[in-house]
Amino acid sequence: MKKTGFVFHELYTWHDTGNYAGFLAPGFPLQPGLHNENPETKRRFNNLLVASGLSNRLTPIEPREATEEEIMLFHTPDYVRKVKALSDGEGGDAGELTHVGKGSYEIAKLSAGGVIEAVNAVMSGKCDNAYALVRPPGHHADADTGRGFCIFGNVVIAARYALKHLNTKKIAVVDWDVHHGNGTETAFYNDPNVLTISLHQDNWYPQGRGLVADVGEGDGEGYNINLPLPPGSGVGAYKAAFERVVAPALRTFQPDLIFVASGFDASAFDPLGRQMMHSRGYAELTKIVMDAADDVCGGKIVMCHEGGYSAYYVPFCGLAVLEQLSGVNSGVEDPYLDFAAGMAKQDLQPAQNDLISEVESICQKYRLI
Amino acid sequence: MKKTGFVFHELYTWHDTGNYAGFLAPGFPLQPGLHNENPETKRRFNNLLVASGLSNRLTPIEPREATEEEIMLFHTPDYVRKVKALSDGEGGDAGELTHVGKGSYEIAKLSAGGVIEAVNAVMSGKCDNAYALVRPPGHHADADTGRGFCIFGNVVIAARYALKHLNTKKIAVVDWDVHHGNGTETAFYNDPNVLTISLHQDNWYPQGRGLVADVGEGDGEGYNINLPLPPGSGVGAYKAAFERVVAPALRTFQPDLIFVASGFDASAFDPLGRQMMHSRGYAELTKIVMDAADDVCGGKIVMCHEGGYSAYYVPFCGLAVLEQLSGVNSGVEDPYLDFAAGMAKQDLQPAQNDLISEVESICQKYRLI
Amino acid sequence: MKKTGFVFHELYTWHDTGNYAGFLAPGFPLQPGLHNENPETKRRFNNLLVASGLSNRLTPIEPREATEEEIMLFHTPDYVRKVKALSDGEGGDAGELTHVGKGSYEIAKLSAGGVIEAVNAVMSGKCDNAYALVRPPGHHADADTGRGFCIFGNVVIAARYALKHLNTKKIAVVDWDVHHGNGTETAFYNDPNVLTISLHQDNWYPQGRGLVADVGEGDGEGYNINLPLPPGSGVGAYKAAFERVVAPALRTFQPDLIFVASGFDASAFDPLGRQMMHSRGYAELTKIVMDAADDVCGGKIVMCHEGGYSAYYVPFCGLAVLEQLSGVNSGVEDPYLDFAAGMAKQDLQPAQNDLISEVESICQKYRLI
Amino acid sequence: MKKTGFVFHELYTWHDTGNYAGFLAPGFPLQPGLHNENPETKRRFNNLLVASGLSNRLTPIEPREATEEEIMLFHTPDYVRKVKALSDGEGGDAGELTHVGKGSYEIAKLSAGGVIEAVNAVMSGKCDNAYALVRPPGHHADADTGRGFCIFGNVVIAARYALKHLNTKKIAVVDWDVHHGNGTETAFYNDPNVLTISLHQDNWYPQGRGLVADVGEGDGEGYNINLPLPPGSGVGAYKAAFERVVAPALRTFQPDLIFVASGFDASAFDPLGRQMMHSRGYAELTKIVMDAADDVCGGKIVMCHEGGYSAYYVPFCGLAVLEQLSGVNSGVEDPYLDFAAGMAKQDLQPAQNDLISEVESICQKYRLI
Ligand SMILES: [Zn+2]
Ligand SMILES: [Zn+2]
Ligand SMILES: [Zn+2]
Ligand SMILES: [Zn+2]
Repeated sequence: MKKTGFVFHELYTWHDTGNYAGFLAPGFPLQPGLHNENPETKRRFNNLLVASGLSNRLTPIEPREATEEEIMLFHTPDYVRKVKALSDGEGGDAGELTHVGKGSYEIAKLSAGGVIEAVNAVMSGKCDNAYALVRPPGHHADADTGRGFCIFGNVVIAARYALKHLNTKKIAVVDWDVHHGNGTETAFYNDPNVLTISLHQDNWYPQGRGLVADVGEGDGEGYNINLPLPPGSGVGAYKAAFERVVAPALRTFQPDLIFVASGFDASAFDPLGRQMMHSRGYAELTKIVMDAADDVCGGKIVMCHEGGYSAYYVPFCGLAVLEQLSGVNSGVEDPYLDFAAGMAKQDLQPAQNDLISEVESICQKYRLI
Repeated sequence: MKKTGFVFHELYTWHDTGNYAGFLAPGFPLQPGLHNENPETKRRFNNLLVASGLSNRLTPIEPREATEEEIMLFHTPDYVRKVKALSDGEGGDAGELTHVGKGSYEIAKLSAGGVIEAVNAVMSGKCDNAYALVRPPGHHADADTGRGFCIFGNVVIAARYALKHLNTKKIAVVDWDVHHGNGTETAFYNDPNVLTISLHQDNWYPQGRGLVADVGEGDGEGYNINLPLPPGSGVGAYKAAFERVVAPALRTFQPDLIFVASGFDASAFDPLGRQMMHSRGYAELTKIVMDAADDVCGGKIVMCHEGGYSAYYVPFCGLAVLEQLSGVNSGVEDPYLDFAAGMAKQDLQPAQNDLISEVESICQKYRLI
Repeated sequence: MKKTGFVFHELYTWHDTGNYAGFLAPGFPLQPGLHNENPETKRRFNNLLVASGLSNRLTPIEPREATEEEIMLFHTPDYVRKVKALSDGEGGDAGELTHVGKGSYEIAKLSAGGVIEAVNAVMSGKCDNAYALVRPPGHHADADTGRGFCIFGNVVIAARYALKHLNTKKIAVVDWDVHHGNGTETAFYNDPNVLTISLHQDNWYPQGRGLVADVGEGDGEGYNINLPLPPGSGVGAYKAAFERVVAPALRTFQPDLIFVASGFDASAFDPLGRQMMHSRGYAELTKIVMDAADDVCGGKIVMCHEGGYSAYYVPFCGLAVLEQLSGVNSGVEDPYLDFAAGMAKQDLQPAQNDLISEVESICQKYRLI
Repeated sequence: MKKTGFVFHELYTWHDTGNYAGFLAPGFPLQPGLHNENPETKRRFNNLLVASGLSNRLTPIEPREATEEEIMLFHTPDYVRKVKALSDGEGGDAGELTHVGKGSYEIAKLSAGGVIEAVNAVMSGKCDNAYALVRPPGHHADADTGRGFCIFGNVVIAARYALKHLNTKKIAVVDWDVHHGNGTETAFYNDPNVLTISLHQDNWYPQGRGLVADVGEGDGEGYNINLPLPPGSGVGAYKAAFERVVAPALRTFQPDLIFVASGFDASAFDPLGRQMMHSRGYAELTKIVMDAADDVCGGKIVMCHEGGYSAYYVPFCGLAVLEQLSGVNSGVEDPYLDFAAGMAKQDLQPAQNDLISEVESICQKYRLI
C-alpha cells in the first residue's frame, strides 16, 4: 500500500470549451456540437473514483492557482496576457484548437497549480505518489501559444518549479498520451536534467512532430526519446516499449522525480486515437513505472492528466491506474475490458517491434539503456 | 451525373436507445451517459446534406413501415413478437446490446421499409442508385435476436424482398462497416445467389466472427468473403482490398443489385473502430463499387446505413459518398480531412497486404476473382 | 382549408448561442450549461411537424439571406458591422444577453430573409397565411444593439420591407411572446401606419418596458398597445385580451397585413415565463386573429417565431397553431394538455380583468376599439 | 453560526430517469428528450456549494442505504418488491410518471437513508440543522406506488424513523415544493403527532389534491394545512404565508423536529411551476422557520431536497438556503436575482392574501395559530 495523493477541483470542469464540432470550432460546414475535450471526460473519472469508494482511500491534495510568476517559468508574458485578456473578455482561441472561455485563465492557473501541489506533496513526503486530475490539459502548449486544447504547460511548469524550489536535480517525464508531448519536448529539448519520453501514435498531432530522430539538442542531446507507435498498437506494444525503453532509461537516468503525462486517449474506445489500450494495460504500465521509481527515486511519481476523450472509458482506465498507484483494490471490474482485450493484435506486432528496436538502438547510442 | 435516391425519415431519430454508457446499459459501476448509437450520429449526417444544398439534388424516396410479413422474410415470429412487446411496454434489450425503446418497433419497421423502398426505386429505374440513411441499423441482427444495436436486419430483409418480388436473381452485399456483418453472413451462408463480403476490424464485434476461413457452407460455399483487417488500417488498405478483392469478385459474381452496408465507423475519429478511413477514402471506395456496378448491373447500388459513431465526422464521410454516388459537387470541403489523411500508415502496410493476399488466394480457389 | 406557407431552414439551428447557464454567460459563479435559447427549442417544433405529417400539408417557403440593405431598413450600419465582425471572428455579445457565434451573421440574415419571403408569399397570394419558424428571434433587437437573444429585428425588417416594396399601407403586429416586444414598439413608436400590440408578463424583460401608458408618440400616438398581464395568467386572460382588445383593434385599424410575433414562452411549462397558455389556447388565439384577418385583410397573417424555451412543449403549441392556420388536423393530440388545462386559475381572474379593462379604456380613448 | 450538516452522494446523480420528453415517457408523438428530473438539476447545486467553498464550512453527513425494514416504515412490501424487480431488470415505471432505472432501487434506498442520517445527526446534536441533497425525491410517493418522479417517501420514512427510534414525540413537515406534498399528507393524515403543511401551486400536481379543506382526519383532524397559492405568486405571498400561518402553527404545535420538504420548483425560472420565488426569498423563508425552530425545538431542522427543475437556478436557491442555515456567507451573489426580483407582482396580491386569510381561519378553528 502506498499513500497516493489526488488532485481534483470542481472548477476544472467549469472550463468552457464551447460548442465545438469535435475538435474544430463551429461555423458552416461545421454544425455546433460537443467538444471532444468536454468536462464530462474528466468529471466522470472523478465520479467513478467517488462512487467506487476509492476516493476515500486516497489523500486529497488541495490545488491552488499557480502564480503568474510560476506560469512564466514556462510561458512568455505576452502569451499570459493574451490568455487573460481572452478569459476576461468573450473568450476565443489561444492559438491552435485551444478555446479559452470566460474565466478559463483562472482555471488554467488552478490546473497548473494543482500539479505543483502534487509535486510538493510527493517531494515533501506527504504522499508516496500522486495523480493530478487537472483540466485544461497541458502537454501541447508552447511557451508562447496554446495548442491542442492545452492552455498552460502544467507538467513543464511543475517540473521547473521542482527544479527551482525543491531538492530536485533531475526529472523524467513519461508521456503516454496518444498524441505527441510536443510542448514538454520543446521546453526541455536542450536540458540534460530533464529526460522526456513520449509514446504516441505516429504523426497524428501535432503533425510532423515526435520523430524518432528528435533526440534533443545541445546539452540535451540524448535526453529526448520519441516512440511513434503505429496506429492499431495494443497493450503488447505499450508493454514492450515500457519494458525495453522506458524502464531501462529511467533506471539509467536516475531522476529524483518522475512525471507521467497521463492521457487515456490511447484507449481502445477513444475517438482521437487509434490505439487499443485498456484499463488492465494501463495498470501494467503503471506497475512498470512504479518499479523503476522504487529503484531510482523512492517511488516518487506525479501523474498529470492530459487527454482522454471517451467519457465512458476514461473512468475505468483512471480507476485502474489509481488502484495500482495506491495498492487499493476498489472491487470494481471494468465492464469494457473483455471487449477491448478481445480485439485482435493486442500482442506485439512486427512493425511495432521494429519501431521499438529502432528506438532501443538510439537509446543505446546515447547510453540511456 | 446519376439520379441518386435518398431515404430519410424524422422518426429514425426518435428511436430511443436510452442513457447507455457508450454501448453498455447503465447501472453501477456504469454511470448513465450518452449511447454511442444516439440519434445525433445519424441526424447530423442528414443535417449536412440539407445545409450544404446536396439534398436538393437528390431524389427523395419516402420510406414506409415494412410489413410483418416482410420482416419475417428474415426474422422469426417469436422474435418479432418479442420486439413488439418490448416496444409496446417499457422497452428493454432485444438480445445483446440492443435497446428497444417505446415505439422502437414501428421505427425499426420503418427502417427496414426504407431500404425496401430504396430497392424498389433502384430496381424500377426510378433512380440509378440510392442511399438509405435508416436507423436503427441492421447488419448484426440475427433471425431470432437483436445484436449490436441492430433490431431488424434491414439489408437481409430488403435483399430477400428483391429476390422474391423483383426481377433480381443474384445480389451482392459489400459491408464496409468496421464491425463484422454477422447477421447478413449468417442469413445467406448457404445461399449461392447472395455474395456477402465483409471488411471489418479483426475480431472486434462480434468476437469470434468474421474469420477468413468462413467461406460459406453447402451451396453457399465460396460465396462469403471476410476481410478481417488489422486495427490501424487506413485508406491504402481499404483501397487495396476493394481493388484486389471486392471489385474482381463483383465482376465475377455478376449480381443484379449491389448493396453496400455502409457504416462509417471505420473512420479515423470513430470511438468504436480503430481504422483510419476518411471522407475522400470513402468516396474512392464508392467509385470502385460504382465502376464494378456499371459493368455488371447497370450501376444498381443501394447503400444502407449501418454504424458510425462520430457525430461530427460521419456527416463528412456521408456527404463524400453521396457526392460520388450522384456526381454532384456540393462545394463543401471536409475540414477534418487533412488531420485524418496526415496520420502515419495511411498507405498499405505489410501485415494488411498479407491479409488481403490470403483472401485473394481463397477467392481464387473459389474462382471468385 | 387555407394554404399555409411554412419557412424553416436547417441553418437556423446552427446559430451557436454558447454554453450559457440559462440566459447568462458562463463564468464563475455560473457553471457552463445549456442556453435557454438553444437549437432544440426550435428544431423539435419542426421535427413534430414533420413526424406528424403536417409538414406535407403546408407550402414550403424557401428562405434567403436578407440583404444588408434590407437589414438596414431597421438597423444602423455600425451595428450591422459589429455583428458581422463578431460573427467573422470568435463570436461575442451583440449587446445584452445576445450571443453571436461564428457564422451567426449569415444565419441572422437568413432569419430576417425568411420572414421577408413569408411576407412575399402571403402578399402575392401564393399562400393565404404563413408561419416563419426562424432563428435567431428578433422582437427585442433595437436598431443599434442586440438584446434578449435577438440579433436582427425580423418582424420590423419584414414590415418595413412590405411597406416599402409591396402594396401594403398599414400593418399590425400582435406580439404574444411572454416578453415585451420592445424592439418592434420602439421601431414604430411614431408611426401611425403600424399598429403594435404586445401582450407580455408585467415587467419581466426588458424591465421597465411595456407599460400600459406607453401608447406611442407623435403621429404614432394611440398606435401602440401594451397588455402587461400579471404573472400566472392563463388561457382565460389571453382569450379575454384577444377578444376585448386585440380583435377589435385590428378591426378598427384595418391593416393590410397582420404579423404575429409568436413566442410560445407564455406556455405553462416555460422556464422564462410564468403564464399558463397551452396548445388549445394558442389555437384559440390564432382563430381570433384569423377571423379578424378574414374581415379586414383577406386573412393575410404572417406569424414569425420568437421565444419559447420548453423544448418538449413548444412543438405541441406550434403544431396546434399550424393546424388552426391551415385547417388541417394532424391527428396528434397534445399529451401535456390535460396537465396544463387542469391548473387552477386558467379562467380570467379579477386582477387580469382589471388590466384588460384599463387597456380597453385607453383604446377607446384613441378610438381603436 | 450554526453547525449545518450536509448529505450528498455521487450515486444520487446516477439514478437514470431515461430520455423522457420533460415529464412524459417518450414515444410518438413525444420525441425522446431530457427528463425534467435529470441529474444536473441536483448535481449543479452541489457543484456550486463546492466551487463557492461553502461545502468546506458544512459538516458532511455520510448517507447509507435505508434498510428494507426502514423503507417499509412507509411502503408496502409489494411495492418495495416491485421497485426492486424493475431495478434489477430493465427498468420501468413505478406507478405514475416515476421512472425506475437499472440500479435505482439501491439509489432510492440511499436517498431515504441519507435523510435518516441527517435526522440522526440533528437529533443527536452532532449538527444543529442539516440539508439532505438527495435524489430521487420523495414527497409524492404513496405507500404502494411511485408518483411524480418519487420512488420512496424519504421524509415520511425519516419521520417515522425518528418517531420510532429517537427521542422524538412530535414532528412538523413544511413542504415548500411547488407541488402538493400528497405522499406526506396521506401518510400522516390521521396522525396528530405529525403536523403537515404544504404550500403549493393550486391544483397543479397531483390534480385534485392539496385543497384548503383537507385538514386531516380522525385524530389527525386539524393537523394538516394546505396553502394552494394561485399561479404567479411571488416572494410576498410566500413570506406572508410563512409569517401568518407556518411560523405560528409551528410555535403552537411545538414539534421536536422540523422537516422542510425543499423543492426549488417555486422559483421564477422553473419549468414545472408558475411561481416567482428567488434565492433571497428562500433565505427569508429559511430564516422564518429557523426562528420558529429556535423557539420550539432548539433549532432542529432537517431540510430534504425534493423538486426543482431549473438546472441553472436551483444552485443559487440552494446556496442561499445553506448560507442561511449555517450563517456562513459564501460571498457569491445570485446573478439572476435582479431579474427575478424585478418581475411585477412580487409583493402580496389580493387573491393571494384572500387564500392565506382563509387558511388562517381554518387554523384558528383548530387552534393551530
Ligand atoms: Zn492526447
Ligand atoms: Zn459498426
Ligand atoms: Zn420571449
Ligand atoms: Zn415539485
